[in-house]
Amino acid sequence: MKPISHVKVAPGMSVKELVQQMSSSGVMGAGRIARGADILHKMFADKDCTIFFGQAGAMVPGGMKEIIHDILLTGRIGVFVTTGATLTHDTVEALGYRHYQGSANVSDSELHKQGLDRMYDSYMPNTVYEGLEDFFVKHWDALAAAKSIRELLHIMGSLLPKEPASILRICYDLKIPVFCPALTDSGLGLMIWGRLAGGKRLDIPAFDDLKEINAIAWDSKKNGVFYVGGGVPKNFCQQAMQFSKQASYGVQITTDRPEWGGSSGAELREGISWGKMNSDAEFVDVYCDATIALPIIWAAVKTPG
Amino acid sequence: MKPISHVKVAPGMSVKELVQQMSSSGVMGAGRIARGADILHKMFADKDCTIFFGQAGAMVPGGMKEIIHDILLTGRIGVFVTTGATLTHDTVEALGYRHYQGSANVSDSELHKQGLDRMYDSYMPNTVYEGLEDFFVKHWDALAAAKSIRELLHIMGSLLPKEPASILRICYDLKIPVFCPALTDSGLGLMIWGRLAGGKRLDIPAFDDLKEINAIAWDSKKNGVFYVGGGVPKNFCQQAMQFSKQASYGVQITTDRPEWGGSSGAELREGISWGKMNSDAEFVDVYCDATIALPIIWAAVKTPG
Amino acid sequence: MKPISHVKVAPGMSVKELVQQMSSSGVMGAGRIARGADILHKMFADKDCTIFFGQAGAMVPGGMKEIIHDILLTGRIGVFVTTGATLTHDTVEALGYRHYQGSANVSDSELHKQGLDRMYDSYMPNTVYEGLEDFFVKHWDALAAAKSIRELLHIMGSLLPKEPASILRICYDLKIPVFCPALTDSGLGLMIWGRLAGGKRLDIPAFDDLKEINAIAWDSKKNGVFYVGGGVPKNFCQQAMQFSKQASYGVQITTDRPEWGGSSGAELREGISWGKMNSDAEFVDVYCDATIALPIIWAAVKTPG
Amino acid sequence: MKPISHVKVAPGMSVKELVQQMSSSGVMGAGRIARGADILHKMFADKDCTIFFGQAGAMVPGGMKEIIHDILLTGRIGVFVTTGATLTHDTVEALGYRHYQGSANVSDSELHKQGLDRMYDSYMPNTVYEGLEDFFVKHWDALAAAKSIRELLHIMGSLLPKEPASILRICYDLKIPVFCPALTDSGLGLMIWGRLAGGKRLDIPAFDDLKEINAIAWDSKKNGVFYVGGGVPKNFCQQAMQFSKQASYGVQITTDRPEWGGSSGAELREGISWGKMNSDAEFVDVYCDATIALPIIWAAVKTPG
Repeated sequence: MKPISHVKVAPGMSVKELVQQMSSSGVMGAGRIARGADILHKMFADKDCTIFFGQAGAMVPGGMKEIIHDILLTGRIGVFVTTGATLTHDTVEALGYRHYQGSANVSDSELHKQGLDRMYDSYMPNTVYEGLEDFFVKHWDALAAAKSIRELLHIMGSLLPKEPASILRICYDLKIPVFCPALTDSGLGLMIWGRLAGGKRLDIPAFDDLKEINAIAWDSKKNGVFYVGGGVPKNFCQQAMQFSKQASYGVQITTDRPEWGGSSGAELREGISWGKMNSDAEFVDVYCDATIALPIIWAAVKTPG
Repeated sequence: MKPISHVKVAPGMSVKELVQQMSSSGVMGAGRIARGADILHKMFADKDCTIFFGQAGAMVPGGMKEIIHDILLTGRIGVFVTTGATLTHDTVEALGYRHYQGSANVSDSELHKQGLDRMYDSYMPNTVYEGLEDFFVKHWDALAAAKSIRELLHIMGSLLPKEPASILRICYDLKIPVFCPALTDSGLGLMIWGRLAGGKRLDIPAFDDLKEINAIAWDSKKNGVFYVGGGVPKNFCQQAMQFSKQASYGVQITTDRPEWGGSSGAELREGISWGKMNSDAEFVDVYCDATIALPIIWAAVKTPG
Repeated sequence: MKPISHVKVAPGMSVKELVQQMSSSGVMGAGRIARGADILHKMFADKDCTIFFGQAGAMVPGGMKEIIHDILLTGRIGVFVTTGATLTHDTVEALGYRHYQGSANVSDSELHKQGLDRMYDSYMPNTVYEGLEDFFVKHWDALAAAKSIRELLHIMGSLLPKEPASILRICYDLKIPVFCPALTDSGLGLMIWGRLAGGKRLDIPAFDDLKEINAIAWDSKKNGVFYVGGGVPKNFCQQAMQFSKQASYGVQITTDRPEWGGSSGAELREGISWGKMNSDAEFVDVYCDATIALPIIWAAVKTPG
Repeated sequence: MKPISHVKVAPGMSVKELVQQMSSSGVMGAGRIARGADILHKMFADKDCTIFFGQAGAMVPGGMKEIIHDILLTGRIGVFVTTGATLTHDTVEALGYRHYQGSANVSDSELHKQGLDRMYDSYMPNTVYEGLEDFFVKHWDALAAAKSIRELLHIMGSLLPKEPASILRICYDLKIPVFCPALTDSGLGLMIWGRLAGGKRLDIPAFDDLKEINAIAWDSKKNGVFYVGGGVPKNFCQQAMQFSKQASYGVQITTDRPEWGGSSGAELREGISWGKMNSDAEFVDVYCDATIALPIIWAAVKTPG
């Protein structure tokens, strides 16, 4: 048994030093942060490992956009799976809009009159939908040529500016496949609906992305999974392992809990029973708001040594 | 201000009587159960109201299948939105498989050897995938004729037996449209992938369901939302209200919390800012495991008087 | 392995019938409600078992006062451990005050001006402190004769009216020892402080209750624990088992989670490592708002058959 | 409205730099970390402010002992309120014992045979009780001279070694009053019980600490509250403000949630309704595992500039 050494904090210490301190502390929250950073470090360093990065939740309105970009820019992400909401919030910022610091103890009727859409204590101006619609009107023909949702997102990335940077543009530039099984369930989906309602056609088959993500999981030498939030992105990566190649590394950051039996809160070890995770894989569950845990972990992973 | 009357419990009391007791208690958990039952009662009684029922989470492995069927069988559900996981677990039971009571404090490697897939403390035998595959092989041509995911699920319903009852068969019989934006993200999705991997084509457009759900929200006299769990089902209903007709009634049962800013944990009142909920709507957030809250609420709603 | 049978809901069904339905469902929330009712049923029926009932949290402002009274009135509770807050809220109602249904999305400054103290969405009028103070002024000499906190609460019970019923009066009448290790940490504590600040003395030794609760745990034939909430009440019962006699039955209702390592969220099985729980005890953790779970469980336990 | 700037992470960055990045992000988790650090910085710099530091939860088994010591060693803490568990775990380490990194997915019966007490995934050897008992046997007469729990803890501090450092020794050296209303509810309490059971007397009045903590709150120029965890420590500080002087600063780190109506999860703004918090106070609620949030916040507060 390894005795617990207590975390020491020093003025001016680096995040890396703090996370190293955490590694010898208890296994609870702090120890899991350290273990998450350690496993991610190995996962990103293992060039044989294809990394499946699943991300859900309000990370863009929560101010975490640049960290997601940064993770993608490492060039180490083999597959990115996300929600339509993340792509919507990230894309409207690429089109020049911003999110704003607000409050939750507020009159939502008043916000509605002011044209502000609330996500807990972040606000988004309702005018973003005008910019999004212009984008879809202008580029419809290019977008309608897509043969899968993955390809639609690839084309969207090609049409977004280099600056401000965006998930879709980065993934286009780096040829990272972006999967978004529930893209219809988002502001982007609504814009596409607007075109369809106006009489346009968009014959993108719903199921072809499955072949691609499963092929990637199958053809890799080794798989690793990195989940920020649960939902469809986590589950879609998890199931890509089920009938192909089990994950050898796993890190998840979640605020959900296992007792309800849902996928979002499930411990990674549960995946061993399903054949989604190797029984000798290295993995950890970090139970924390991702807007807190991700910056710490990522700052530690980015720092050499 | 209304003083709090304390809940009185009597031998043999009915669930309805208990929920009535709760209505005069504090507003915290018990009061919200009572308010949820009251609003649902009004929502189901208001024949002008089209009910959008969104359901996510492990309700079938959690033993709640018959309540979901029962809600659908009222004939009052205008739209049902769910996850691929719910449809998978419900369909395998329709094909004769069962889920089993298990434990979470267990060796997942051992379960894997036994061919048992764990969801917290429920188990599913891995053999279900054989039955599912047989179904898809046998019925491929019928299924491949679908022109939308909604239609695919409708055809699936027609091919399932009357008994054991299933979500898809009930919805087929009652002509309830079932939407499942992330159907690819499920065991059913994997079965379809198996066919595609075997060289079959399935040209179901991904976005056409959007037209249909938005049209229903638009054409209704009044909308009501009923969410058991969050995720894509809740959000997909919510956004159907955004540019059409705001909801007049709302009940959600969730274990998530609002502070992370995600859709699953968002209070219903947040929807007012987005224009998804009327500012004078009747709505309530019930913070509870749905396998506990839903049976109580539904038993109360079902009881006349 | 036991297959999961799904919960069936029928019009007019009793709470008992619902809980029986839950017993054959999944083990998640619903199954744990049923198991909690079953274990409590056995615990209360086993006359050799001394029941330690620990209760924390806002159960009185939440409208659960009468259920706590009802549990005490069974005559089966050997030890009641609670918080100062519960005794304060229950006592002010015995003195004629009420709590009120309010809202959480409100201006607390405005409430302060109106003399209303908020507990999430319940309110208590600040005038309760006048009534409490009168009580302590009037009865000081009787109270100051107490030789332990347990005895102080016993004397308080003797001074409260039969109606409206109260925890302390019921426990006085039934000779149930009430322990409240942190009584100083409450409105009642503040009233005592008011007397001390006015120059009175109160020489109640802080540690003598320990002898009594440990002696009860030691002298019993068998122990059972029933926790509604965590905090000091749960832990104080737990530690009474540690060096005396391990519990043979256990039911806890909690919203906290185990991952933080604290006592409130700890699974009951953790107590086995400490020697507080028999390794072959019957116990269950119910993860639910107690204002929802307790009424259901108690209504089932109360119903014969 | 202030637009959200996204957190930027750089190799080798300091914790302070990370927290500064968080300050311009969304208000959700990251922004609250930054605001917590900012308010603590002001609170500690404001020499007119008496700081009430309340700490609950498994911080010592979680590896956070040295940070608590560090906070006390600033000399800026006016009052420290904690649980008996924290003092027990901290004191056994002062007596030479250690806690150990373990696992939660384990047989508690097996641990019991090995003499290991589990707190989620930390272990404590059961032999600590021998060392604690020796301490109380040896120093009984000195301890029994105490006239309040606060004084008992002060004397204990004088009897503990300088090294390894401990909460009680540091508070003794720096004359920081330590309040522990539920000291009986702990391993230390059990040791005192052992002496009492052996025939010793300990006439420490239970209520005298109330005078002292209320006097400190009353006599201060200004009050600030800093809560790591909830329970009795938070509530005991909160109520010290109620009839004396409202807090002007407040930072709490909690994993509990407000909807249950209990003190542990209550938002700090709720204190305004009770008269415990100034309506123009600066305060923030940080919803996070304290073993993660506290090291980050404290490393930022400790760093000048």
